[in-house]
Parts: sequence; structure tokens; C-alpha cells
Amino acid sequence: MKETTAYAFDADTRIDSGAAPGQWRVGVSARWNIMGVPDGGYVMALAVNALRAQIAHPHPLTVTGHYLERTEPGPGVVVAETLRTGRSLSSGMARLIQEGRERARFLTAFTDFGAAQGPTLIEAEPPAIPPLDACTRARMPSELGEQLTLRLDPACAGWLRGEPGGPADVRGWIRFADGREPDPLSLLFFADAFPPAVFASFGATGWVPTIELTVHVRAVPAPGWLRCRFRTRMLERGLMDEGGEIWDSAGRLVAMSRQMAKLRLTDG
Amino acid sequence: MKETTAYAFDADTRIDSGAAPGQWRVGVSARWNIMGVPDGGYVMALAVNALRAQIAHPHPLTVTGHYLERTEPGPGVVVAETLRTGRSLSSGMARLIQEGRERARFLTAFTDFGAAQGPTLIEAEPPAIPPLDACTRARMPSELGEQLTLRLDPACAGWLRGEPGGPADVRGWIRFADGREPDPLSLLFFADAFPPAVFASFGATGWVPTIELTVHVRAVPAPGWLRCRFRTRMLERGLMDEGGEIWDSAGRLVAMSRQMAKLRLTDG
Repeated sequence: MKETTAYAFDADTRIDSGAAPGQWRVGVSARWNIMGVPDGGYVMALAVNALRAQIAHPHPLTVTGHYLERTEPGPGVVVAETLRTGRSLSSGMARLIQEGRERARFLTAFTDFGAAQGPTLIEAEPPAIPPLDACTRARMPSELGEQLTLRLDPACAGWLRGEPGGPADVRGWIRFADGREPDPLSLLFFADAFPPAVFASFGATGWVPTIELTVHVRAVPAPGWLRCRFRTRMLERGLMDEGGEIWDSAGRLVAMSRQMAKLRLTDG
Repeated sequence: MKETTAYAFDADTRIDSGAAPGQWRVGVSARWNIMGVPDGGYVMALAVNALRAQIAHPHPLTVTGHYLERTEPGPGVVVAETLRTGRSLSSGMARLIQEGRERARFLTAFTDFGAAQGPTLIEAEPPAIPPLDACTRARMPSELGEQLTLRLDPACAGWLRGEPGGPADVRGWIRFADGREPDPLSLLFFADAFPPAVFASFGATGWVPTIELTVHVRAVPAPGWLRCRFRTRMLERGLMDEGGEIWDSAGRLVAMSRQMAKLRLTDG
């Protein structure tokens, strides 16, 4: 096993103490860029990692990010505020600042999944996806593609063969290319790492800037591939939701996500 | 038609200028209490109404609330911060303060649905719910019940007849008891106004405090009844999601919601 910081995700979410309590120096890496812009899920994980350093509970439970301005690769400061420290939950807010301008703001509740107690009722079932060797190799464009290994269900990969027109529904398997195993922090990233589901309908002809992304982490994932499904229920006059479910290799639902985004088609 | 302020929801989300710019005096009404606590969707609508007074775009598009401390009926101040003003979107944050303590914090993006432009693709279909006169009259307990008219699909109302054990899935029709028509602001309230979906499984034997609630408003609703479906996909050791869809009388998807909540069963 490599040292932790040998993995790209760990190296690129590293934080250092800043000029004052509640300030954390970070470096936004270009290795998670998509079309020149750092992936929104990566930026969320980076900011939440800084906030977590001053929070009593270890696991992000629910995180909402609002992306106010374009984040740039390069240095930044996360200004973190602890809002509440309770027995089973803590809350906080993180603001990513670059060159004096706030780029994104994150509201978060944390918990400790190891200490959770109460009733359980599981109605969700994992999406049916063919086994890995029956799936289509796909690659996200830009630097981001190098960090991921991605296999798509052939039934929703027609757009990769130049045949879009399917439902806005993308299913497949994902993991880090360098073998780092998933954990609660990286689930924030994986919630925004698939090709947009609307590409299955329109082809990869657009740009999908995230307005807001909310991720519910539900459990500590088991090692191995993550099984994912992302769907857009409604795109209306350029505004769309995309909802996701992430299941671990043990068949457990480990994260649910939903974002509000714009779709800007390249063709007009 | 009554004057606007004759409707309970309008009267109880009224705001007044506060001591400084960005401060809004509000009164949290007890008329929206559930088990002694103001409904979280009502508190969201109240805070967002204050924030909206200083924002360039009229319609809340995506709102996330974190409920930090119990809100109390009585006076409060909403401290509102405009984060970004763009061409088609604006963003802001609202904090509800009572007796010097922050009770809830809301991150919001606003838009103008009348001005939205771009491609449309609608894959969602409205839930099948029997017509109104075939549905079961239900009433939320406490003061909240008096503000709502609620009709549940009999197929998911067994728990009202002392027969829980069904899936965590509640469907039905809702509107304001005093005839006020729905609008984007009140959809924030309706997203948290149904009985919890887990009551269909466990019976109405618990308390479901919201940790975080996110509502995506998708369109200006037509007048009339709202057709709703709320489901819990996974309750795990006391932590649960609840996702909702709200459709208007014209068959349009007007809001999607998801919350993270605790379930505390009365029976233990």
C-alpha cells in the first residue's frame, strides 16, 4: 500500500493552518479540471476537508455547495465556521476564497457513522448494471479523466458511439485510477464525477455548470468499485436537476446526491 | 378574492425592515407548529421571503436549510446576505436569529422563471394518485393541521387506520385550508408539510426532526391542488432521507425536495 499522500486525491485535498483560527490554506489542483475548470465535487471535498479539521465529528453527512464564481487552479483559503457541536451531529460552513473573492460556499452537517443508533429500514435497491467486463470503457475529458477509471453500462452509452437520443440516465462503475479506496470524503467528489446524464440524450455537446450540489453520505463505503446511477428528471429551459445514487462493492447505498445545473449546448 | 394579507401564509411570512440594511424583522407564527415546533418548511419560506426582498431575481430556485437549534414561535431577525447578482441567477444566505441565537441558516439561488431560456427535456411523470373524492381525508396534528387540506391515496394510508407496515411512500393532494393558491415561495413550505413517509411503515409513533432540507423549485405552479409524493429510500440507524415531488394542477413538476432527518420512535 502506498503512503496516503502518494494518492492524488489525498495530495490534492491537503490543508495547512492559515493566518488565523478557522482559516485553512489549500491548493486547488489542476489535476481535477474538466474543460479548464476544477470539478465541483473535488472543490467540495477540498473545502469540507478543511472544515472537518475543526469539527468534532469525522464524517460529512450532508453537504450543500453553492458555486458562486469559477474556481481557479492555484492557492486559496478556506474560511471555516463551526456552527453547532452536538452529541451526534455537528454543523459548519466553509467558504473558498481565491484572490479575495469567494468562489464557493458549503453548508455541512457531520456525524460519526460508527456511533449512529436507531431504527433501520432499507427500501432502495441497487441499480442493475452489467458486470465490469461487460461494460464500456469510458473516459472523462481533460485532466479529470486521468484520475478516474470509468465503465458505463452499454445500454446507456450509445452517445459514446455517436448515438445519443436515449433517456437522461447514466449507469456504471467508477474508482480512482491510482487505486485509492473510496471513503466518505471522496464520495463528495464521486457525486460529481460521472458524465452528465443529459449527454445520453443530447450527446457530449454541452457544458453543465453546477449551481448547487447537495450530497448525502449514508455510510462508510467498502473498498472496491462504486456502482452509480445518475438521472435527470427534468430539464426545463436550460435548468436541470441531476440526481445520483452511489452503492459500494458490498451492495450498500453509500451516497445520494442531487444538483441544480445549467445546460448550455455547444450547438446552440 | 381576499386581500393578500388575509391569507394565513402571507400574514405569517410578512417581513419588516430591521435595524440595519440586510436585517429583517419577522414574527414566527405558532399557527404552523407541529408538536410545539414551527414547521421547517414554513421557517424556510419565512427566511427566504426576507432574503428575497433584497435580491434581484424573484423566484427561489434552490434552497438549502440547516436547522441548528429549535425555532420558537415569536419575534426574530433574519440577517440576509446577498452573495452574487448575475444575469439569470442571484445567490444569497439568510440566518434566522432569535434571542441572540442562530436557529437556522439558508443558502439560496434565485432566478426568474419567466425569463429562463434553453433546451427542455422532461422525463418525470406525475405519480398516479386516485382523484380527490376517492382519497382519504387526513389531518396533520397540532396547529399545522388547521392550515392545510390534505387527501391521501388510500393505498398508502393504512397507518391512519392503525395498519402500518407499508412502504415508506406517501402520496396525496394538498392545498392551503384558506384557499390561498400555491406560488414558488409556498412550495418551500409544502415540501415539508406532508406526514413523514416513514409513518406509513412505523405508524405515527415518532418525531422526525429535520437536519437539512433542500428544495428545488422548478416552475411557477398553476392554481389548484398540488399532487405530491414523498418517499424514504433508506433509514439507517436513525438517519433517513425523504425525497419529494410536487406537481401542480396542470400536471407540471413544480418542486423536488430532499431532506436528511432523524427518526426518533416514541416507542423506543
